[in-house]
Amino acid sequence: MASKPSIPKGTRDFSPAEVAKRHYIIQIIKSNFEKFGFQPIETPSFENSETLMGKYGEEGDRLIFKILNSGDYLAKANATHLENKDSTKLTASISEKALRYDLTVPFARYVVQHQNDIEFPFKRYQIQPVWRADRPQKGRFREFFQCDADVVGSKSLWQEVELVQLYDTVFSTLGLEGVTIKINNRKILSGIAEVIGASDKLIDFTVALDKLDKIGEDGVKKEMIEKGISEDAILKVQPLFNFTGTISEKINQLSVLLEESQEGMKGVEELRFICDNVTELGLSTAILDLDVTLARGLNYYTGAIFEVAPPKSVAMGSIGGGGRYDDLTGIFGLKNMSGVGISFGLDRIYLVVEELNLFPETVTATSKALFINYGEKEAFYAMKAIKELRNAGIKVEMYPDNAKVAKQFQHADKRGIPFAVIVGEQELVSNTFSLKNLITGEQLSLDFEGVKQALSDS
Amino acid sequence: MASKPSIPKGTRDFSPAEVAKRHYIIQIIKSNFEKFGFQPIETPSFENSETLMGKYGEEGDRLIFKILNSGDYLAKANATHLENKDSTKLTASISEKALRYDLTVPFARYVVQHQNDIEFPFKRYQIQPVWRADRPQKGRFREFFQCDADVVGSKSLWQEVELVQLYDTVFSTLGLEGVTIKINNRKILSGIAEVIGASDKLIDFTVALDKLDKIGEDGVKKEMIEKGISEDAILKVQPLFNFTGTISEKINQLSVLLEESQEGMKGVEELRFICDNVTELGLSTAILDLDVTLARGLNYYTGAIFEVAPPKSVAMGSIGGGGRYDDLTGIFGLKNMSGVGISFGLDRIYLVVEELNLFPETVTATSKALFINYGEKEAFYAMKAIKELRNAGIKVEMYPDNAKVAKQFQHADKRGIPFAVIVGEQELVSNTFSLKNLITGEQLSLDFEGVKQALSDS
Repeated sequence: MASKPSIPKGTRDFSPAEVAKRHYIIQIIKSNFEKFGFQPIETPSFENSETLMGKYGEEGDRLIFKILNSGDYLAKANATHLENKDSTKLTASISEKALRYDLTVPFARYVVQHQNDIEFPFKRYQIQPVWRADRPQKGRFREFFQCDADVVGSKSLWQEVELVQLYDTVFSTLGLEGVTIKINNRKILSGIAEVIGASDKLIDFTVALDKLDKIGEDGVKKEMIEKGISEDAILKVQPLFNFTGTISEKINQLSVLLEESQEGMKGVEELRFICDNVTELGLSTAILDLDVTLARGLNYYTGAIFEVAPPKSVAMGSIGGGGRYDDLTGIFGLKNMSGVGISFGLDRIYLVVEELNLFPETVTATSKALFINYGEKEAFYAMKAIKELRNAGIKVEMYPDNAKVAKQFQHADKRGIPFAVIVGEQELVSNTFSLKNLITGEQLSLDFEGVKQALSDS
Repeated sequence: MASKPSIPKGTRDFSPAEVAKRHYIIQIIKSNFEKFGFQPIETPSFENSETLMGKYGEEGDRLIFKILNSGDYLAKANATHLENKDSTKLTASISEKALRYDLTVPFARYVVQHQNDIEFPFKRYQIQPVWRADRPQKGRFREFFQCDADVVGSKSLWQEVELVQLYDTVFSTLGLEGVTIKINNRKILSGIAEVIGASDKLIDFTVALDKLDKIGEDGVKKEMIEKGISEDAILKVQPLFNFTGTISEKINQLSVLLEESQEGMKGVEELRFICDNVTELGLSTAILDLDVTLARGLNYYTGAIFEVAPPKSVAMGSIGGGGRYDDLTGIFGLKNMSGVGISFGLDRIYLVVEELNLFPETVTATSKALFINYGEKEAFYAMKAIKELRNAGIKVEMYPDNAKVAKQFQHADKRGIPFAVIVGEQELVSNTFSLKNLITGEQLSLDFEGVKQALSDS
């Protein structure tokens, strides 16, 4: 192979520093998931195609990576589709497996498959990669991690309250202060659709309303009319154009606006329960805000809808989202299993934490000290000390070769190792170690306990 | 979908208890990798097909999972191969990507691709799943994790010494006392081949010799002769039929036996360095043993060969292996990069730790306490306490619904939660909590600090 090897577009190699930073974030998410009573599961990277196909719409089906059957796959290929060169139709007969597209469908499949072994309500978390044959672009990859926490088997709104707290706790622990947890409710959206008398225009309506800050009230109304929403309808929801105040005040406005809609009023009631309790219990650093333009997952969410925006100083899309879906496992034949869950967007959280310089320096810390290799006898003496230090939990290593000393020091420097330990002939005789601080240049002659102490303290 | 959903054969779902146990093992491997100065990298799940194909032999090529190109893949399919229905030849034109088959080839690709950013010697570890379209059977899966540590860029034998120590440390930490770390050297095997004058019979020779315990000296010799090894050759290596004593004694016997072989004597010298230093530095609980029948990876290992057998009380194949390969990155055009590494077999280690009952009980620990839900007011009071307890790092949860109390207690029991906290009307009035130990049945009335103390201590 003459040219340098490469990796498929949309995928990434992670260097040691990147892995360390990613794991720092994952570890904080994971430990808080567990503190809130969620338990981990893991599912296979590929599922039977029938498990995934048809669950994400036509577009989703196209973006699912299919795995070619092993062996003589053409022997079982559908002859007609093969003759017609119909790629889409042929796929089912030459590919039985596909890479998972998200963690929600595999979770639903898991719940149905193992329903007799599961104690409900089941609080599960899952942190695994997913794959999508999307066109790669900045911040969008073909392989990326999802970090999901869901509860299945209870309609209690206390779970929504806890999920808001969970977001607050994770982002506060990461030092990401001032994230906005936006909340809405599918039933509020249905109520608005009822009021404007055009449920098919709901998305057009929310998309236009979302631009209020950018294009102003007149601009939004103009766009709505262009999209076929009547002036009369717009008049009915006039309060939404001046939708300010505390959450509690906003909810009160909605309860007037949606008075005539039974569904809408159910949404108001749910929102009030969640927001009142979150407010009274208090959040550490996050801000809870009601956003009636929030319409993500409109096709499957049935109650609360969540989305998290990063601190205002960072220009970046949402770093988390989720909601309530009343029929999570119905696609696999298990009815009446309400689920509610949230997801953390690892890649974007990484970028935000990086931009705000919030990764602790210790995250990427490498070995504490490099023992310089002065030859076989000295190396053996060093290895004896290294063994003891490692037993004490201190990360240390020895340069493997008896190379030029300058090269060895350079290695420590390039690796970001803060101390060098010199064990030459002299140290061997006196049974000591010369510990050199590579940042200050200070050098001390110490016995083993002294080295151990110094490296433990640093 | 009428029937219960399932997963592809050879893949697995992992329940919360299984994930917890797997992560317990992974965490011990990971933290020791880091203590020894190894740094983590991660590579994409799929690579360009050309990166993987041809690297694992013909059999390997067949076992690599190929990913079907997205979109109208038949449009670019090779017409001739399509017409001939030649599945094997068609693949390259309808599949550009493949799931990684091991972690070594992607590591070699990583080193070559990022050679300018890497400071050598590079000590990397990688813990990620790999996929093989093998026929599934007991203990063999189509998706499984590999845990590899390798050093690239130095021929120093101190690395072999450290890798033996690393095995010892990991298995000792897991409580797996008495594993046997078998060592051999490719050059010893070459030496033996020279002495028996039949390098093409080397595998037949080692396979037969490996049966010494089972079929006795006469049986082994009979098999060797059947395989075409001359009686004269067998006579020359007679000492191998009574190959006992300490490692040091075994090496001395080899140095007599292989006296005439330059390559063999180089192997003796390497073995002696590694074994002497390992012995003098000492191992915690593992046993180092020289096994001249160890011939794994004969096609790529060039120096040391390692394999780890579980404690003798467990009937199970090797739980780890590795070795030295002098030309790791040559396949991608970067010459003279010697590598040495070891791998831990997660699935088998799991089975051994399970069989010996060595998983600490705390590994699968769920929440410390379940707060019983007596209705909205009580639940709010409970949630205030829960928030504080979680802030103090204590895992607690509330039953989300105001269900029958017996059902809630049953939930705690089935989940293995050791305490229930009762917050009824009475507790609300007295600002207390009733803490019930679900194992002993003991119940105490405590204030918040009392609950916190009790749950922290338990």
